[in-house]
Amino acid sequence: MALIVQKYGGTSVGNTERIRAVARRVARHREQGDQIVVVVSAMSGVTDGLIKLAKEITPLPSEREMDMLLATGEQQTIALTAVALHALGVDAVSLTGAQAGIVTDGVHTKAKIQNISPDEVHRLLDGGNVVIVAGFQGRTAEGQITTLGRGGSDLTAIALAAALKADLCQIYTDVDGIYTTDPRIVPGARKLPEIAYDELLELAGAGAKVMQLRSVEFAKKFNVIFEVRSSLNEAPGTIVKEETTSMEDVVVRGVSLDKNQAKITLFGVPDQPGRAARIFRALADGAINVDMIVQNASHEGGQRSTDLSFTVDKPDLLKASRVIEELKAEIGFKEAVSDEGIGKLSIVGVGMRSHSGVAARMFDVLAHEGVNIGMISTSEIKISVVIDLAKGEHALRTLHRAFLE
Amino acid sequence: MALIVQKYGGTSVGNTERIRAVARRVARHREQGDQIVVVVSAMSGVTDGLIKLAKEITPLPSEREMDMLLATGEQQTIALTAVALHALGVDAVSLTGAQAGIVTDGVHTKAKIQNISPDEVHRLLDGGNVVIVAGFQGRTAEGQITTLGRGGSDLTAIALAAALKADLCQIYTDVDGIYTTDPRIVPGARKLPEIAYDELLELAGAGAKVMQLRSVEFAKKFNVIFEVRSSLNEAPGTIVKEETTSMEDVVVRGVSLDKNQAKITLFGVPDQPGRAARIFRALADGAINVDMIVQNASHEGGQRSTDLSFTVDKPDLLKASRVIEELKAEIGFKEAVSDEGIGKLSIVGVGMRSHSGVAARMFDVLAHEGVNIGMISTSEIKISVVIDLAKGEHALRTLHRAFLE
Repeated sequence: MALIVQKYGGTSVGNTERIRAVARRVARHREQGDQIVVVVSAMSGVTDGLIKLAKEITPLPSEREMDMLLATGEQQTIALTAVALHALGVDAVSLTGAQAGIVTDGVHTKAKIQNISPDEVHRLLDGGNVVIVAGFQGRTAEGQITTLGRGGSDLTAIALAAALKADLCQIYTDVDGIYTTDPRIVPGARKLPEIAYDELLELAGAGAKVMQLRSVEFAKKFNVIFEVRSSLNEAPGTIVKEETTSMEDVVVRGVSLDKNQAKITLFGVPDQPGRAARIFRALADGAINVDMIVQNASHEGGQRSTDLSFTVDKPDLLKASRVIEELKAEIGFKEAVSDEGIGKLSIVGVGMRSHSGVAARMFDVLAHEGVNIGMISTSEIKISVVIDLAKGEHALRTLHRAFLE
Repeated sequence: MALIVQKYGGTSVGNTERIRAVARRVARHREQGDQIVVVVSAMSGVTDGLIKLAKEITPLPSEREMDMLLATGEQQTIALTAVALHALGVDAVSLTGAQAGIVTDGVHTKAKIQNISPDEVHRLLDGGNVVIVAGFQGRTAEGQITTLGRGGSDLTAIALAAALKADLCQIYTDVDGIYTTDPRIVPGARKLPEIAYDELLELAGAGAKVMQLRSVEFAKKFNVIFEVRSSLNEAPGTIVKEETTSMEDVVVRGVSLDKNQAKITLFGVPDQPGRAARIFRALADGAINVDMIVQNASHEGGQRSTDLSFTVDKPDLLKASRVIEELKAEIGFKEAVSDEGIGKLSIVGVGMRSHSGVAARMFDVLAHEGVNIGMISTSEIKISVVIDLAKGEHALRTLHRAFLE
């Protein structure tokens, strides 16, 4: 008897017919005698609809109240999924994140899981139930409702798999695995049979939408091997695990385009120690993730000053701009300009560690297509560049052809 | 500084514009220095939409899971109301029923409040916050999410007013008070300046939709004087309180038509002791409210047997029918027939206690209009009859003219 954690995303539970299909799949596994924990997201569209309601009232709603609001989406799905399993004669009980023992810190809308007390889940499993847990949510030690941020349902599934010492964790989604790049943009994209945590981490950080970064980090940390596969068919998906030696034979595992970044440039920052630290501390205090950072010295009007650019997630742009404006007097920069018209293009592969010249070849390919490079950032297994958003998809197809076809 | 509990129903919070209007009203009270607890229902349509989703999956979803599902409606409204207050610069914190300390028994979909621990509400009020509590819901001592049944938000407000020892409880709704009858059916209906708990209880039990029965019972028990008034204007509403001597001068306070009842008749029930008790015990065990009961002796085929009729709420009809079918062999009745085409017509007034001949006059008026009476039930201050649903509205107008115009 195996213990399986299955996670179904918003599209997989997008309407009652799909929820019934999920229930049938769960019931088939149950018939094989396995214990099943099902983690579900909000039905697709529900979370966005709720955000729209809140923004009709005010552009920057309180994060505590957004958690209160958004946690309802998953709570609806768990109830409907339990009802669908009952209709098939399968014993099932739904649990909110709080009821499932998922305790987080108090950073609303981006809470981190602190610990999971799996007693209630174990008790219900031992009682013969399928246990359906609301993804994306938890509670603080004081009983406040929190959410884990977009894609947090994956995190719930992987963290539960770790806490329950599950035999298998399956992430069901609307794609049938992890691809070399986004198949909707690049027709030649191929499904990967396996991928290393680090590669998926870099791809996720680079905008590949299959998995949220923190989920993969969590899986890597607790060595939870998981499979990304489709809820619409029976095809095997992509296994995500610790890298093996043979994986290094492939130089580039995938390429990706992140359209969800925005750039803020501070012009005329006085060139004095501690200014950058002050800026990024303030952004961090606001729980704003900064991705790429570039600083160039300039000498405007004889005074030593620098221009500082960084990128943030587009939804954080308004908040980040406010944080920056509040610092204007203190830091003494001339002007802050934000740009939503950028794309971040990345190539990823553990094989880069042992192969040189990958960056040069990437820049060459882009130059040949007339794509101007704004910012560059590299890691051991990734190279990212910021380019004009309008040229993003064409550049992605070009890179895929150069490295992966 | 007064402590005011204000309850806003589903129509009053039916969209974000209305939620903002509620926030403006709350803010005006807050400016006067009062402490405010706001209880809100789900936005109109939300609960019905969720029920529809569940019924797309199965006609009789589990009640525990329905509570899990439906509790999300109010949770959404509290968050949006808090956000709307923040947008006006008013400190506000939302609490689910569970977080507000509302502990209930475990009868899902119809839970009874067992106690309220108002510490968290007091703590937040003392911190200068408007506290927004989700109506209609609570939790069991074991942490299960429960709901109080339709109209349960009124109960939440009145129970909170009692637990907090509030100075005032206002029930804001889409009508501006309690009327002699439904103004949508009877143009001559008049708003009552005041009404006794018992009268409102009988009217609510008779299908008047302004207030749920249990809320009024609770208010009577804990002597919570409350006002039913409109969220759309500033007109004073109807004060609901213990009856006074002067109230007895009015014989009939109101008339009502309940279209939400259904009748089940068991034909050929063997005339032996204990049969009726067995039937109504089984219905009670299923948490099905039975309203009127009539039994007539009959002598079919020489064997002594009776026909037994009773009414239940229409939504409970399917469940009640199943309970009855399961008892068929044990009880030995011939046939069970259900009828959804009935209406219950009632006249109510504390003055009936001291005036005779009211029933005779009511039956007279109905007979004169050719309305046949199926079942009759009376209390000290109410007379109800079951009639053909098709004749219900006409009969209501006729009774209103006879007793109240």
